[in-house]
Amino acid sequence: MRLSRYFLPVLKENPAEAQIVSHRYMLRAGMIKQQAAGIYSWLPMGFKVLRRIEQIVHEEQQRAGHIPLLMPTLQPADLWRESGRYDDYGQEMLRIRDRHERDMLYGPTNEEMITDIFRSHVNSYKDLPLTLYHIQWKFRDEVRPRFGVMRGREFLMKDGYNFDLTREDALHAYNRHMVSYLRTYERMGLTAIPMRADSGPIGGDDTHEFLVLASTGESEVFYDSAVTELKLGDRAVDYDNREEVAAICAEFTTPYARTDETHDAAVFDAIPEGRRKVGRGIEVGQIFFFGTKYSEPMGATVVTADGSRVPVQMGSHGIGVSRLVGALIEANHDDKGIIWPEGVTPFSVGIVNLKQGDGSTDSACESIYAALKAKGLDPLYDDRDERAGAKFATADLIGLPWRITVGPRGIAANKVELTSRRTGESEEMSPEAAIDRMAKIYAEHP
Amino acid sequence: MRLSRYFLPVLKENPAEAQIVSHRYMLRAGMIKQQAAGIYSWLPMGFKVLRRIEQIVHEEQQRAGHIPLLMPTLQPADLWRESGRYDDYGQEMLRIRDRHERDMLYGPTNEEMITDIFRSHVNSYKDLPLTLYHIQWKFRDEVRPRFGVMRGREFLMKDGYNFDLTREDALHAYNRHMVSYLRTYERMGLTAIPMRADSGPIGGDDTHEFLVLASTGESEVFYDSAVTELKLGDRAVDYDNREEVAAICAEFTTPYARTDETHDAAVFDAIPEGRRKVGRGIEVGQIFFFGTKYSEPMGATVVTADGSRVPVQMGSHGIGVSRLVGALIEANHDDKGIIWPEGVTPFSVGIVNLKQGDGSTDSACESIYAALKAKGLDPLYDDRDERAGAKFATADLIGLPWRITVGPRGIAANKVELTSRRTGESEEMSPEAAIDRMAKIYAEHP
Repeated sequence: MRLSRYFLPVLKENPAEAQIVSHRYMLRAGMIKQQAAGIYSWLPMGFKVLRRIEQIVHEEQQRAGHIPLLMPTLQPADLWRESGRYDDYGQEMLRIRDRHERDMLYGPTNEEMITDIFRSHVNSYKDLPLTLYHIQWKFRDEVRPRFGVMRGREFLMKDGYNFDLTREDALHAYNRHMVSYLRTYERMGLTAIPMRADSGPIGGDDTHEFLVLASTGESEVFYDSAVTELKLGDRAVDYDNREEVAAICAEFTTPYARTDETHDAAVFDAIPEGRRKVGRGIEVGQIFFFGTKYSEPMGATVVTADGSRVPVQMGSHGIGVSRLVGALIEANHDDKGIIWPEGVTPFSVGIVNLKQGDGSTDSACESIYAALKAKGLDPLYDDRDERAGAKFATADLIGLPWRITVGPRGIAANKVELTSRRTGESEEMSPEAAIDRMAKIYAEHP
Repeated sequence: MRLSRYFLPVLKENPAEAQIVSHRYMLRAGMIKQQAAGIYSWLPMGFKVLRRIEQIVHEEQQRAGHIPLLMPTLQPADLWRESGRYDDYGQEMLRIRDRHERDMLYGPTNEEMITDIFRSHVNSYKDLPLTLYHIQWKFRDEVRPRFGVMRGREFLMKDGYNFDLTREDALHAYNRHMVSYLRTYERMGLTAIPMRADSGPIGGDDTHEFLVLASTGESEVFYDSAVTELKLGDRAVDYDNREEVAAICAEFTTPYARTDETHDAAVFDAIPEGRRKVGRGIEVGQIFFFGTKYSEPMGATVVTADGSRVPVQMGSHGIGVSRLVGALIEANHDDKGIIWPEGVTPFSVGIVNLKQGDGSTDSACESIYAALKAKGLDPLYDDRDERAGAKFATADLIGLPWRITVGPRGIAANKVELTSRRTGESEEMSPEAAIDRMAKIYAEHP
């Protein structure tokens, strides 16, 4: 993309309404615009990151064998009356009446609707196991929406639901979600720690939250620092292998890691002192096992091998897709702006032309731009007629992980500068070498 | 995908509520489930087609230089009071009040909001031309929703908006949209004819609807049969070249083609009799030029080169993404089921195992399945323990364009059968030849 033809409305001033860094940088980098309290437009660069995160979530869910579908944003109130949650949910549920005076609502979650889909179409244990998920906009009418997309009212979430015959099968589904989530966050360049949590209004016995450590997190967290050193890395996982999947879960949940809701001071104090950490975390996902909480009242049953009929064992599993954009920035920034991890960056590399209008510099930039695109990369070429300082400031603010700087003096010697946004380190090299380096780096971030 | 692990709830019976063939087949093929009047869940196979269409629309919009963003589903009523449409829109607008008693609405379209984004961030003619678009769920509270996704209440639409300095620039944007739409529909295997239309509540002078000919269409259409023979084909289009783009528009709009709203019997009667056609059409898109209708009342202005301030020239341009799934089926089916064009098919090819459990047949199917996936194709392997007749009936109903049938007798002679869903013709060949044929066919439908 050429910046001169893009829509990247960066702000020079710090917006007064933004209290946390991700909100501030998303506004300043022209990623979002507020349309009403807690409701945002995703401007082009914001939308690109959102879409990239959505894509990673889709890929990892499907790798785990989960099947995508799409439920609507609006739901009939009657479904929620069946589960008993229509009255429980309180004012956070946005209630709507249509022109025929029918009670509707903007879905805050989808346990009822997916259970309805299941009971309408599945009748036999032979059709199990089944895990369905979708990525859809949801609404929670927060009293005081704040922190930008971190606590918006209209938000994008992946929510998945497993249907199993036995408790053991459902616990395998729970574990499969935990592992697929670990890989999802790692691909985004995030360390998200699974912590035993409280189940809240979804209900159920077993639940883990995934928390990204950040000083602006809404939850106080207590953990053994050993947990932050665990990596799934590129090990191959067979998601059908129960033992393998359970072993990974054990590996990641054995070191102590809890939110204040489930914190146990006695256990915590037994951790060697140097590894005992207290901090704050941003919740970016949660998994639940809740058995027959919805299947029983809503009649989602299957016929078993011996001809009896049993309610299915269920769980639900969520990733906060729009919230992740904020969490990523909270965890990756400095005082000049955002620092995108390669896995989620809106553009792979920025090209900064130091002397727009200079024939040899322009033509070098054009060749680099074309060569990067030919390698399947997605460069952003700053071809505006601006001072170098302004271009660097924009580059730092929007935070692409790599920058290729092209100036007339360098180009005369067939040199450009390749700069890492994260380290700030620059290296001189030929344009060809810079292009090859980019291709090599992004080959690891498909 | 293995069918035994997929969620494809086909129905044996014809659903009573479905009056038109696309609605009937979408229900029978397990593509959708109604959740409330005019509100549907997109079950896995339906979602795959929807996503495929969305992807083609994104690619063709970006090829034309248009920039994606994403506006929210809910909008504040105040924006619509500025344009004067809040009261005009009537009961089709779903009005919502949030917990703080603020008036909101579920967006039926986005002229106001995009104009608000523009005026907040753009100030100079130097930032023009600019075309922004999004693909988002919208809501129109129809009195009598019907025909499945063809006339639903919650529907997915691409809507794009151009901002230009002069009327000529905006007319070029209009033409660019027309050409990009022609290519979009052609990639889906559809002939959609641009017809001069009426502007309705969007307003403006120039507007064309794109109509797919189908006997169940909601509009009566009058056209010169010459228009149905035009093809954009694979000609390269430079979307910045005004003359080239205008010439393509002239080519496609010169033969007479109008809906009943703009029909002119005198002009129609001048067409040679053999080419004079009356039929019905399904609207799958519409483009509008409306100048300053929104920019003037909402203050979307730019400073020009001479320092004066003028309202921008705008247009809006829509493609009915969810409706296209229905339109595609209306235009591509027979009495056994759907016939997907290759460009939008949910799976590239079906593999039918005639004798599940037979060692050599199973292993041949597995190799073909793996080889197709290795070529980047997306096969659906019917590995269920079912009679051949039931597998063929499912294959015909869900309508994948190609089927590879594998049986024990054929495999003993290294032969499988490759069948075209459209022609019904079968050919015997080696598994390798069938795989190569598939790869070759889909190389033309990236």
